[in-house]
Amino acid sequence: MNATDGPPGVPLGGPVRREDDIVERIAAIVGRRDIPPGEVHVGDDAAVLAPFVGQTLVSTDTAVWGIHLDAALFPLEDLGFKAVAAAVSDLAAMGARARAIVVAVTAPPGTDLEELHRGIADAASATDCPIVGGDLSLGRDVAVAVTVLGECPGKGAVLRRGARAGDTILVTGPLGRSAAGLRLRRAGAGLDHPLVIAHRRPWPRLAEGLAARGAGVHAMMDLSDGLALDLHRLCDASGVGFALHDVPVADGASDDEALSGGEDYELLIATDDPARLALVLHGRGLRPPLAIGRIVTNRATRTLRGEHLERRGWQHSL
Amino acid sequence: MNATDGPPGVPLGGPVRREDDIVERIAAIVGRRDIPPGEVHVGDDAAVLAPFVGQTLVSTDTAVWGIHLDAALFPLEDLGFKAVAAAVSDLAAMGARARAIVVAVTAPPGTDLEELHRGIADAASATDCPIVGGDLSLGRDVAVAVTVLGECPGKGAVLRRGARAGDTILVTGPLGRSAAGLRLRRAGAGLDHPLVIAHRRPWPRLAEGLAARGAGVHAMMDLSDGLALDLHRLCDASGVGFALHDVPVADGASDDEALSGGEDYELLIATDDPARLALVLHGRGLRPPLAIGRIVTNRATRTLRGEHLERRGWQHSL
Repeated sequence: MNATDGPPGVPLGGPVRREDDIVERIAAIVGRRDIPPGEVHVGDDAAVLAPFVGQTLVSTDTAVWGIHLDAALFPLEDLGFKAVAAAVSDLAAMGARARAIVVAVTAPPGTDLEELHRGIADAASATDCPIVGGDLSLGRDVAVAVTVLGECPGKGAVLRRGARAGDTILVTGPLGRSAAGLRLRRAGAGLDHPLVIAHRRPWPRLAEGLAARGAGVHAMMDLSDGLALDLHRLCDASGVGFALHDVPVADGASDDEALSGGEDYELLIATDDPARLALVLHGRGLRPPLAIGRIVTNRATRTLRGEHLERRGWQHSL
Repeated sequence: MNATDGPPGVPLGGPVRREDDIVERIAAIVGRRDIPPGEVHVGDDAAVLAPFVGQTLVSTDTAVWGIHLDAALFPLEDLGFKAVAAAVSDLAAMGARARAIVVAVTAPPGTDLEELHRGIADAASATDCPIVGGDLSLGRDVAVAVTVLGECPGKGAVLRRGARAGDTILVTGPLGRSAAGLRLRRAGAGLDHPLVIAHRRPWPRLAEGLAARGAGVHAMMDLSDGLALDLHRLCDASGVGFALHDVPVADGASDDEALSGGEDYELLIATDDPARLALVLHGRGLRPPLAIGRIVTNRATRTLRGEHLERRGWQHSL
């Protein structure tokens, strides 16, 4: 797959293969059959998409094999899946509709590019968002840089910065599943254990994000780096503090995994009308949101059950 | 810079640095001060852009340090510049207006990320297209994955597939400058030699692409991999052949560099009204296009001055 031909082509795996041939095989894996009339996906200098409705949203994310996913414990296709899911989750966090995905892959010779792209295609299919272009390059790492495009009609995207004192803080589900899955996998659990699947195949909450935007929530983001880091970021952006009364811990996860495990991709929401949010989610067949606390005026107030909640999470692994 | 927080943060260079701090310093280098009202660039889960006019275009390209640019001969900031310029050139090739750029960087510890992002910012500024988001990850390679977003109002993007028998084939300038510059640099030429600059700082022909689309040309692409490969691709997509009578060689370049050097980023155009194209380019103060041949019906006919022109270029370095 290659919507572009920018830098010169480079060899990728096995015996010397022509870039155009590899691109064709990969396009067959990730390409959509039902391309809307007037659109061009793979095969030209750029992909051409039918006009977007309202604001255009864009986000980019890279997943590196051995860094963002343990290469000894998980198959390569999980790297592709996670990279796409993490990027699409950023659109969910704005309340956007996902419109298109482009994927730039670097890999050393011998990499099973077809396996990697099967994971990419699975995630695109699961989120119902087409892969419209990409790029392949030689590199020492297997790295997947995913860029997602979305649209926000109507009142526009929900930002991090809109939380107001008195707002209820909610999450779309219990936390810690991904971190618990990684722990269990390290201890020998199979790839099909439900918590291990939560780590391998994260689920972007697109439907929840759209519903929350429709319900008029004030601020939203996705929990990629853990509540104990991401809630601080949301409150920094909004210039407010928080007082949590609860952290919903997923079955099988520890308190610490729920607080700072990361990669759950549940949405974190601030709204002055939690009843409306619950009603809208219910009306779309989605799980009820879980209230975990309240936004407060004093931006230095950052508490869980009255104790100061330190800023920690993936950032601290630096 | 980080419009996303997908995979966990990782350390980047020197003493342990917090991801959020690095992101802030880089955002100061690449971020635009005059963000249009209603838009959000760096700092949320995704960037939010004012509605696009007409079709949305997207293309992605990766440049890897030591593969797409010789690390012994060129400064790191050139990698950033070339990566952005190559991606933006794909929008020029469609006749699009560039609207936004996102950049996903991987780098090993100790990389001068500020130098790299100065090159990225230079190219964004030169093409008048804002960097609206990005991502930083640890990796063994310095790799820059650039995704560009553009818009095509009116009749829409110019594709590769529209060339028709009888069309005149033109290029927007003489060829071989980039390859000649690389050769001269290897032989000791300074970084400020005009041909070396053509290699280090390629110039996307956005104005020419817009003008050509306005002039109603039939097919267009950018010459990233050399005429002797890219013209075959254009004719493959259009189901036609070509008969070239000339290849315009830039001053200081060899015939071979002009034919298959690559990275010139001049536009390759097929049109049935070359006089109108010349007039429109002239009216916008742009160089006159150079006619090099004609599109023919028989798709097996691929000739230069009556001899078969082999498919070669960067693809052959595989």
